[in-house]
Formats: sequence, C-alpha cells, structure tokens
Amino acid sequence: MTSSFHPPRRTLMGPGPSDVNPRILEAMSRPTIGHLDPLFVGMMDEMKGLLQYAFQTKNELTIPVSAPGSAGMETCFVNLVEPGDTVIICQNGVFGGRMKENVERIGATAVMVQDAWGTAVDANKLEEALKANPQAKVVAFVHAETSTGASSDVKTLVDLAHQHDCLAIVDAVTSLAGTELRVDDWAIDAIYSGTQKCLSCTPGLSPVSFSERAIAAIKGRKSSVQSWFLDLNLVMGYWGAGSKRAYHHTAPINALYALHESLVILKQEGLENAWARHRLHHNALKAGLEALGLPFVVPQADRLPQLNAVTIPEGVDDAAVRGALLDDYNLEIGAGLGPMAGKVWRIGLMGYAANKSNVLLCLGALDDVLGRMQAPVQHGVAIAAAHAVYDRT
Amino acid sequence: MTSSFHPPRRTLMGPGPSDVNPRILEAMSRPTIGHLDPLFVGMMDEMKGLLQYAFQTKNELTIPVSAPGSAGMETCFVNLVEPGDTVIICQNGVFGGRMKENVERIGATAVMVQDAWGTAVDANKLEEALKANPQAKVVAFVHAETSTGASSDVKTLVDLAHQHDCLAIVDAVTSLAGTELRVDDWAIDAIYSGTQKCLSCTPGLSPVSFSERAIAAIKGRKSSVQSWFLDLNLVMGYWGAGSKRAYHHTAPINALYALHESLVILKQEGLENAWARHRLHHNALKAGLEALGLPFVVPQADRLPQLNAVTIPEGVDDAAVRGALLDDYNLEIGAGLGPMAGKVWRIGLMGYAANKSNVLLCLGALDDVLGRMQAPVQHGVAIAAAHAVYDRT
Repeated sequence: MTSSFHPPRRTLMGPGPSDVNPRILEAMSRPTIGHLDPLFVGMMDEMKGLLQYAFQTKNELTIPVSAPGSAGMETCFVNLVEPGDTVIICQNGVFGGRMKENVERIGATAVMVQDAWGTAVDANKLEEALKANPQAKVVAFVHAETSTGASSDVKTLVDLAHQHDCLAIVDAVTSLAGTELRVDDWAIDAIYSGTQKCLSCTPGLSPVSFSERAIAAIKGRKSSVQSWFLDLNLVMGYWGAGSKRAYHHTAPINALYALHESLVILKQEGLENAWARHRLHHNALKAGLEALGLPFVVPQADRLPQLNAVTIPEGVDDAAVRGALLDDYNLEIGAGLGPMAGKVWRIGLMGYAANKSNVLLCLGALDDVLGRMQAPVQHGVAIAAAHAVYDRT
Repeated sequence: MTSSFHPPRRTLMGPGPSDVNPRILEAMSRPTIGHLDPLFVGMMDEMKGLLQYAFQTKNELTIPVSAPGSAGMETCFVNLVEPGDTVIICQNGVFGGRMKENVERIGATAVMVQDAWGTAVDANKLEEALKANPQAKVVAFVHAETSTGASSDVKTLVDLAHQHDCLAIVDAVTSLAGTELRVDDWAIDAIYSGTQKCLSCTPGLSPVSFSERAIAAIKGRKSSVQSWFLDLNLVMGYWGAGSKRAYHHTAPINALYALHESLVILKQEGLENAWARHRLHHNALKAGLEALGLPFVVPQADRLPQLNAVTIPEGVDDAAVRGALLDDYNLEIGAGLGPMAGKVWRIGLMGYAANKSNVLLCLGALDDVLGRMQAPVQHGVAIAAAHAVYDRT
C-alpha cells in the first residue's frame, strides 16, 4: 500500500522553489483555523501591511492571490485588459511569452517587443512601439527574468508607459525581496510575484499589488472579468476591511501562515539588508563560478544577484552534472528553459538560500563533479575566489 | 513590530475547513524539494493513483488543481464550455449560483433549473429542461450542497444528461470521502472537489477528474481555453508521464505533501469505512441536535451526514451563540450562507472531525450556550441521545 512521502533534505539553488526557512515550515504546520475566524481575519490584515512593506507601497489592494505566480500574472491581465485592447509586451525570456498567451486568451492584441534573451529590456524599443501603437492601453514586462537572470530598468519603462497613457504591469516573481523594488517610487500600476523565490516561502501563493489608477481601470471596465476566481472586484470584498469581509473562496489557511512568517522574517532582517545579502553572496558565487570557467549569460550591468545563469562548458553533459549534484550532494541547480535548455545552468541564491554555506557547497560540489566530467578544473580555485570576496567585505 | 502568528487550537465543525489530522500538518512541514525533482515527480504519480481511489475512477486525468475548490469549478467550466454554448445548471443552494457566474463569464448561456434550498435536485425538472433545450451541451449540479446540507442523486442526473447528449459536471467539494461517490460507476464526465472538507486536509487545492469523453471534448474545442493557468491541455502535460513532464507552473509542493498524506490516511481507513464513519457520527449528532430542539433544514432522505444544517430557534442570537462557542470552547460551527444567513447553523462532521469526541463536545457546548441564552434546554438530554445511538452500534 502507498505510504507517507518522506522527502530528502535538499539544498535548493535552482530558479525556485528556494530553500525554505525552517521557521516557515514550522509556521505552516500550526493548527488550521477557520478562514472567517476573527483571529484569522486579523492575521490577514497584518499580512496586507507586511506585503505593503515588501513591495514598498501604500497600495490598499496588496494581497496574496490564493494560487501560484502564474495565477498572479493572470490576475493582472484579466482584470486590466479587456477584449479588443492592445497590450505592448517587452519579451526578453520565457515569461514574456506567457504574458502574450494571457493577452490573447482575453481576445486582446499583444504587440511584442523582442530583446535578446539574457539582455535587459531596451527602453528605446518600447518607446518606438508606444509611438507606433497609440491605441495601446497596457505595457507589460518582466523585472527579473527567471529564465535568464536579466534585470530590467523598471522605473524607466514604467515612466515611458505613463507618458503614453498606458498602465504598467510588472512581473516581479523573482525580484521581490531579492533585489531593489519600489512599487510606489517607480509608480508601478500592477505587480505580481511568487512566494517560492526570494521570500523563501513554500510555493503556491502570488503576492500582488494594484495602484489607485489600476483599481479605477478595473472598476471602469465595460466587460466583466472573464475569471470568477481571479476577479478582483470579488477578491477586494474578501480582503476588505474586517467586518465587511465577503465570502469568496476558502483561503489556503496554512499556506498563509507560512507567507506571514516569511514576511515577518523579512521585516526583521530589513528589506535593504536582504537586498545587500543577495548581492554579497552573488559576488562570492560569481567569483567562484568564473574561476570554474563558467561564464555568465547576462552582461554584468544587467545581472540579477539571485539568479545566476552560466553557460555549460562545451562537451559537458548537462543532465549528468545536475544528476550528480542531486544524488551526491542533495543539491539542486536549475536547467535552462526553452531555447536555453541544455545550454545553461541557472543557479539561484534566493532568500534563505542566499548564504555563505550554500555558496561554498555549490562551488565545492561543482568543483568535484565538473572535475569528474573531465572539465579543466583546478580544484580549490573556486572556493578560494569566493573566500577572497568574503574576506574583502 | 509584527510578530509570528500563533493560532489557537480550534475544533472545526463548520462547513470547512475541517479539523486537519496532525499527521497531515506534520507532512506539510517536511522539507521543500524542487517541483521537477525526480522524487517529487514520483510522489505526483502516486498522488494520481490515490486520487483515483478516492474518486473511484480509472480516469487518467485525475489530479489536484493548484488552487482552491473555486478554481477547480472554474477549471471544469472553462475547459468544457465554449462561447455560445448552453449549459443547464440545477441550483438548490449557493454554489449553483456560482456555476452560473462561471458559465456567463465564458460567454455561454446558463439555463437555470431551480429547486428549493434545502431539497435535492429534482430529476423531473432537469428532464424538462433538457427537452426544452436540445442545444444544451453540458449539465451541471452540486452533489452535496455545502450551503444547505442537501445531497442529490448523481447517477440519475448524469444518466439524464447523457440521454440528451450532454456532458455532466459535478461539484463534489463536500461529498468526496464523506459520502458515497463513484465517478466511473456513475459515469461522471467532470468532477471537482476541495481538500478542506472530508479529506480533512488544509485548504488550497482542488482534486478534479475528467472522463475520456470530457477529454475528447477539450481536445476538440474550437476556441482556446480562456484561462492559461487552468487550461487542461497545458496542465495535462505537466501531470503527464514522468519523463515527458512539461513545465507549466511551480506546484505548491508542501500543500501536495499534505494532500498525499491525507489520501494515504483515507486509503488506510478504506473509503467505505470512511463513509460509514461519517454516517455513524451524523446519526449521533442528529439525535442530540433534535433533543436540543434544533430541527434539520433538509428532509431526512436527502440529508448529508457531513453537513448538518439546523434551524436556529426563534429568539436566539446567531452570532452570540457562535461567538460563545468559539470563545468558551474553541469550537467553530458555521453560519448560514446567502438567504439562510442568521437563520441556520451548519455543523460539519467532515473527515478527521467526524469522531465521537467532537460530537459530544459540540452537543455539550450547545447545551450550555443555548441554556445561557434562555433557550428551553434540558441539560444532558442531547448527550444522552447521542450516547444512545453509539450504544446501539
């Protein structure tokens, strides 16, 4: 008969899920209470404040969608886009393509602005597209492309969108809590993220935030939102002020305990300290990876600290290396996605996983496994390079 | 500064979430591993088999949707219904109304067949509607109405749908694992449930199952599914055979650990034993509630064992009683929904919560609290009535 599932203890340094802080796992296992229990409602109110801190926003509509990041993306699109609308999507990796799918399933038109994978979104190309498409209503792009590790300049892109009377939807799945992100200062209209990246929480929820301008657009829609589950007019009632709360769906209680705990941990550390920590360990990891002869995919200026995509050396078997890391070291790193499959590894340093032990484990394990695969590795240089970075700071 | 959230230990006897088995909470807190980890993929394959057992089906497409029951409902409708289609919905409570919302947001037409709240769906009315609407493509109804506690005759209703060349969508949110349900024997085409009812798992996932006929309809669609997140053509690739698994979204890993454990527990008990247990404790609770002068909303023949809706006595303050149960006994029972708000209580006996201790706690606490509210209660009669039932068995 099928028995209980007992997972091993892995070190998660892929593109997410990232290592979950044990405090979060413990919080998740606390007793389930009712989703309309006054104590749970109080926790939801606290959660809003904590998410506002993480997003650096005063937006009233700042909540976790009760489903993974993909559903957060869909929440933004189905609420802000109506059939017949034009949306300009800047694509520089896998997730811009998913945005296009979302827009087209609404019966709207997606105007694609393509940039090379591994580079940042080019603001000049967006500006040209905005001029060529004065009917556009929304601009959408990814802040931190999880498929390549490229970071784009959110403020500049949002400013351009606003100059052309467009709302800006930003994918912050991999950026939230890992790298600078300021929803209000950058005037982002709609943003979605995931819990399983730099928040180091379990996967399954999608924090979102909407500006007053976005809410006005939602309230002024001509058509109803095509998804009942993701309709913010209904979700707003559910996450509204305590006593007026309207039943919408049953919240994923224990997953919300976990997210609450992860946000408490973030607040205790301080957002800017968390950003700096990601940067520090990225610098050490980068020094080691380069010493191992693994070049970065993304130019230095646009590189995300939390998602390190490196090119697999000629003649090295992608799956064999990842398999050996998993089997011999319980260490997960990520494969390439889409056209980058087999060509790159994606090494995450997200949230709780961004620490010195993980950096040294990853470099030490790669040093061993690559050596076994006849890659020209001089044992120890990677670790030495990482220590040199730590010693400087 | 905001601190960790420590919920109290409640006894959950509302309409869900139900009491979660501590084994499930423990499973949920096991270390997170990657969603593409071979060990996780193996667990997903096991999960399919366990869900097939719970649903009593051989349907290949039997999976948990990565979001709550409402999203499971939406998955069924957006995949099986296209713009312009006609769907006959039998409504006998709140959730039939939600089905209507789903259908209309697809741009399809909902033909509503209304039955009184608290009664089962009337097969004769469905037959009339099928004759009057030969263009209908889908019939949808709720097996176990969570808002009233009424059970409907699934087999008869599905047979009628099939006689008129319609697919049948069944809401089994509250029935799965609590009361007889046989997906294959009853020839159900699409079914959705929730984890937080008689599976006694944490809320947040929606088990679904689709027949070959339903899959053929999905594959033969003229239009694309309007939701990217819920598109079964994509989800099927994700839950497909191990090696061919295509990345769709990041699975809610720890929530799936919990569901896996709850299904293992169900299999260990045996499905028919679980149904019988719900029936036993319902009989004891019923005897006690009637001794307290709380009449049932639903006629005996259509009554669900796991959701006991009783009428609040004249002059008794709904919120005051529920508040006292929560404050003095850490006991949650449910309020009425929609037009039944303030008029009924919904007392759940779902999954792990369906046990003798809970029945006695609930009756003993109501005995006290109703007595304090000047309801004409003779202390002890409820407990005696329950014991009489237990002694007979």
